[in-house]
Amino acid sequence: MIINPNSDLEMTAIIQSNVEKYAKGEFEVVCKATLGASKFIGSYEDISKSVTGMKELVYKNEKDFDGFIIACGADPNLDLIKEITVKPVVGIAEASMKIASMLGHRFAIIQTTKRFVPNKEALIYKYHMEGLGFAKVSKKGISNYRNEEEIFNTAKLAIEEDGAEVIILSCAGMTGLDRILEKKLGVPVLDGVICGLIIVTGLIKYGVSTSKIGRFKLRR
Amino acid sequence: MIINPNSDLEMTAIIQSNVEKYAKGEFEVVCKATLGASKFIGSYEDISKSVTGMKELVYKNEKDFDGFIIACGADPNLDLIKEITVKPVVGIAEASMKIASMLGHRFAIIQTTKRFVPNKEALIYKYHMEGLGFAKVSKKGISNYRNEEEIFNTAKLAIEEDGAEVIILSCAGMTGLDRILEKKLGVPVLDGVICGLIIVTGLIKYGVSTSKIGRFKLRR
Amino acid sequence: MIINPNSDLEMTAIIQSNVEKYAKGEFEVVCKATLGASKFIGSYEDISKSVTGMKELVYKNEKDFDGFIIACGADPNLDLIKEITVKPVVGIAEASMKIASMLGHRFAIIQTTKRFVPNKEALIYKYHMEGLGFAKVSKKGISNYRNEEEIFNTAKLAIEEDGAEVIILSCAGMTGLDRILEKKLGVPVLDGVICGLIIVTGLIKYGVSTSKIGRFKLRR
Amino acid sequence: MIINPNSDLEMTAIIQSNVEKYAKGEFEVVCKATLGASKFIGSYEDISKSVTGMKELVYKNEKDFDGFIIACGADPNLDLIKEITVKPVVGIAEASMKIASMLGHRFAIIQTTKRFVPNKEALIYKYHMEGLGFAKVSKKGISNYRNEEEIFNTAKLAIEEDGAEVIILSCAGMTGLDRILEKKLGVPVLDGVICGLIIVTGLIKYGVSTSKIGRFKLRR
Amino acid sequence: MIINPNSDLEMTAIIQSNVEKYAKGEFEVVCKATLGASKFIGSYEDISKSVTGMKELVYKNEKDFDGFIIACGADPNLDLIKEITVKPVVGIAEASMKIASMLGHRFAIIQTTKRFVPNKEALIYKYHMEGLGFAKVSKKGISNYRNEEEIFNTAKLAIEEDGAEVIILSCAGMTGLDRILEKKLGVPVLDGVICGLIIVTGLIKYGVSTSKIGRFKLRR
Amino acid sequence: MIINPNSDLEMTAIIQSNVEKYAKGEFEVVCKATLGASKFIGSYEDISKSVTGMKELVYKNEKDFDGFIIACGADPNLDLIKEITVKPVVGIAEASMKIASMLGHRFAIIQTTKRFVPNKEALIYKYHMEGLGFAKVSKKGISNYRNEEEIFNTAKLAIEEDGAEVIILSCAGMTGLDRILEKKLGVPVLDGVICGLIIVTGLIKYGVSTSKIGRFKLRR
Repeated sequence: MIINPNSDLEMTAIIQSNVEKYAKGEFEVVCKATLGASKFIGSYEDISKSVTGMKELVYKNEKDFDGFIIACGADPNLDLIKEITVKPVVGIAEASMKIASMLGHRFAIIQTTKRFVPNKEALIYKYHMEGLGFAKVSKKGISNYRNEEEIFNTAKLAIEEDGAEVIILSCAGMTGLDRILEKKLGVPVLDGVICGLIIVTGLIKYGVSTSKIGRFKLRR
Repeated sequence: MIINPNSDLEMTAIIQSNVEKYAKGEFEVVCKATLGASKFIGSYEDISKSVTGMKELVYKNEKDFDGFIIACGADPNLDLIKEITVKPVVGIAEASMKIASMLGHRFAIIQTTKRFVPNKEALIYKYHMEGLGFAKVSKKGISNYRNEEEIFNTAKLAIEEDGAEVIILSCAGMTGLDRILEKKLGVPVLDGVICGLIIVTGLIKYGVSTSKIGRFKLRR
Repeated sequence: MIINPNSDLEMTAIIQSNVEKYAKGEFEVVCKATLGASKFIGSYEDISKSVTGMKELVYKNEKDFDGFIIACGADPNLDLIKEITVKPVVGIAEASMKIASMLGHRFAIIQTTKRFVPNKEALIYKYHMEGLGFAKVSKKGISNYRNEEEIFNTAKLAIEEDGAEVIILSCAGMTGLDRILEKKLGVPVLDGVICGLIIVTGLIKYGVSTSKIGRFKLRR
Repeated sequence: MIINPNSDLEMTAIIQSNVEKYAKGEFEVVCKATLGASKFIGSYEDISKSVTGMKELVYKNEKDFDGFIIACGADPNLDLIKEITVKPVVGIAEASMKIASMLGHRFAIIQTTKRFVPNKEALIYKYHMEGLGFAKVSKKGISNYRNEEEIFNTAKLAIEEDGAEVIILSCAGMTGLDRILEKKLGVPVLDGVICGLIIVTGLIKYGVSTSKIGRFKLRR
Repeated sequence: MIINPNSDLEMTAIIQSNVEKYAKGEFEVVCKATLGASKFIGSYEDISKSVTGMKELVYKNEKDFDGFIIACGADPNLDLIKEITVKPVVGIAEASMKIASMLGHRFAIIQTTKRFVPNKEALIYKYHMEGLGFAKVSKKGISNYRNEEEIFNTAKLAIEEDGAEVIILSCAGMTGLDRILEKKLGVPVLDGVICGLIIVTGLIKYGVSTSKIGRFKLRR
Repeated sequence: MIINPNSDLEMTAIIQSNVEKYAKGEFEVVCKATLGASKFIGSYEDISKSVTGMKELVYKNEKDFDGFIIACGADPNLDLIKEITVKPVVGIAEASMKIASMLGHRFAIIQTTKRFVPNKEALIYKYHMEGLGFAKVSKKGISNYRNEEEIFNTAKLAIEEDGAEVIILSCAGMTGLDRILEKKLGVPVLDGVICGLIIVTGLIKYGVSTSKIGRFKLRR
């Protein structure tokens, strides 16, 4: 199951459609929006508004699903969700960064506006990956997360100016643009949601989940 | 104003009484518990239960107070609170670690149980201070956060075995035990709440607050 | 295809049998030993003896297979193999560390003898993960990589003394012991070869591979 | 008491006047220049010339004052002064960096010339803060440490090009320009001397000082 | 003895001639090319082609020489050679970076093409020196490793734009250009081969060699 | 020329006698004690007492000597001396750590008392080497820096408990004990003074010195 931490039904539908293409019927996957959340996650306040809805989604669906993906490039409330369920939980930022680091020397995470760069940097640092990749924004920014050309331009800069060898499409809403951009850019372009699926379906098939002995121990 | 992120009124009263001793009437300080929160913050789930109540405390009191302290050793929801108000906000873990690092080569944060060590380590790392201090728990742990003797024994170990030169009383509930323990241990012992007060009253007097240009920009 | 960088046919057979159990017929996987290599990879000299055989295995099989796993806990010649083929290549040490870091606060890689600890530490450092996990050996070491009890004892120490929350079975030869040990230890126990399969099958299904623009560019 | 490690009486007077404004008569503060020191601290040699005079200032005034601030952006001889007195000692670079790191994602320390950048970088590194802030100089440099416009331009660049969210006025001589620049720049601007006062008056009120058990132990 | 890991006899002759100038007859030094190696080391594949020839050079010459230098800026197979001989072994990249770090705040290693920058960055990281120096390439690159003017231009940029205080001539083929460039640039310019000689002749005279107790223990 | 930063003539004579053995008449070397310094460097105050005398030694002898070694394990006033002379300057701690890091996976610097451990740790950190080595003291400490047996016991612990592969005799006074201890311990044992000589004589022969363009620029 994929949790879209915002309440945007259109983005939820895009994600659903795209993951089904990846799944090819081999496994079942359902993407749900978060009730009470903002339409777009762009601040710590937005993240806080997703807390109650995300917990409810997990509590309600824990028995029916084998694992959870948090489909937002900020990995909102990831530690929390890892803690409250025994099922595997994967954030798309964490999954895409770790996969990217196995595919090339340095990755760039494309950001839509300058506003999100420090927050993404804090996330990269959280995963101990500040030597392996960076957040990239162009001067003008990206007006819309489906604007292929502006994403291309930002990624191009990251490759030519900063030595990026792998591109991560940060925002879950960019899902599906990966293959087109990869052809144009000549480097691997990763869709975070698919990266999340790779990890979570692998964990499910393997039968392992979050360690419950320490940092993510169930309360009570 | 001091936000106690849990709902324990007894702990709130202890904190209130202790900060008044420090204030000596020179400034006004009020400690409030968080409605709807757990009685004790011991997990990411507990932290998530404090979100709504803490936001409400800030929204309601922003006009009447000059700054906020989050009085819990986990610095719960600190980034969020820094973002949603223009008044200065200080977490007691962050404040005490930064002050401790100016007083000696290495600090130890006393933990009551092994369960909280990885979470505190993640916090130390977040503040880029993993080379400057560490979380310490004794084998038996500390049965009660007011148990002076057990805190003393854990601190003693941190000094003798791990080279701690400064002790931080992690939990806001330990407030007031600092001076007694300092005499016995022979090293500075820091109460996080007082450290928070040092920083927040200084910032208020100086007239500076959180930067609103990037990571903690107000939404909308 | 799985490359066993040593020439031990028995270990190769154990790996083959174990990965087939994981694959459940959903995909084809073949494990081959490396001609001219040592029977066990325990030094840089052993790694150097695998170079020629590993390159040949890749050149010969590149057309017939969709991706490669290097099945040795030292990730021998991983950068080289990533460079010489356009197909995805995964080392079991890298894959298991990155997956482990998503499942708990700290992982321990079980080593059979003290001799391999510095080399494994160098590998952990190479992947920027020295803050996330460590190599662990018991005082007596482990006499044989199939000795379940001795592996259990070493893992137990790593959990109790060093705060490990996830265990990695470093050596490809330990494959298959993961589920038994997980039950006894109460924390996730990862078989590097399966972790490699999770990543490489995911990458194949997704259709991405190593970036060929910089560090791993094909040499004419 | 504030130690100006150079012998410039004019700068000493500016500092004295500015801290009195901050103190508002609530506490007594005296700034003294260092006999035998250079007029400006711009090299390790200058720092070495301050050693004797600074020690004498501490020995003579230890009984009459409750704490010391070293008012130079290079924190000259800070470890030494922390060691030789039992009273709290604060360097303005250390204090301002630690406060800045609580107010925003990244700080910039404004430098007057390129010459001082590597030395400031070494200082930032010493305090484990190279991931949290950086030294900034403009191409032309700043001709005079009271030149408000040139300081503004350098700070502006640091914000726009390098993502600084907080500005530190490195040099004690820049004291008093903070509020004007803050209004123009729209981010917190910190005067190191005031930051030092916040910490040292807090420590004095709290009754804690440098740990005397290890690195800063008194040499009989 | 100096091992040139490539098979280029011309470069071998240049190195031989240059080290003899440094030796001034005070010690004997012989530079040999590696049989079966590529003419230029520019990839992991090239490094792998040098393995067999380099091992043979060491096995054959171990009795007749007191120590080994690996004369290629990629330090190819350095861990391996350190392991297989009891004589001291020095890589020119490692030696030059460690010497450079004692001569100035930050060093730049001049690269001929963009292609080698990520590989050199990985090497700098391996030696824990990413905070002390960096790899530098100009936009156009350097057409030929003996092209003094292009090397000068790249070094100039590293000094003016990135704050380099010491220049390392990465490629063994650049040997001998150091003194001319030093005069023009006004900063120390280090020839890696000479740096290797400083260390290895010092170790020989002193009588110490690689530790054989752990990471570089002789196999068998 | 070797500067002994303390005023102990006996230690000076031991150093002089030992370096002459190493020099074997191939170069001239003179060790001088520092006037006005403490008899032993054990604190920042001691370091400050050496400042004037060390500067005078350099000013007086700069014309007659080709380079300087600072012969104390604390590298006292090293940045200062690097700045004030154009001749090469080497600290024995820096030189021995950098050489040690080329000889094995991890080094231990033997300390005589617990008191000096934090200060040495700060020095190791200064040189970016905290991942490569550590300061080691035994429980009882070492009563006298010429006590071979106690040094042996501390080194033994560092090897067996902490994985040290190379031993550094921190204190210049331990000079000459290296070869005896190396035989007993079975790992390289480095005398800092000899390491300093390796580097400084190499630099002199090569004709390079400290970069004068930035951090260590001469102050008019």
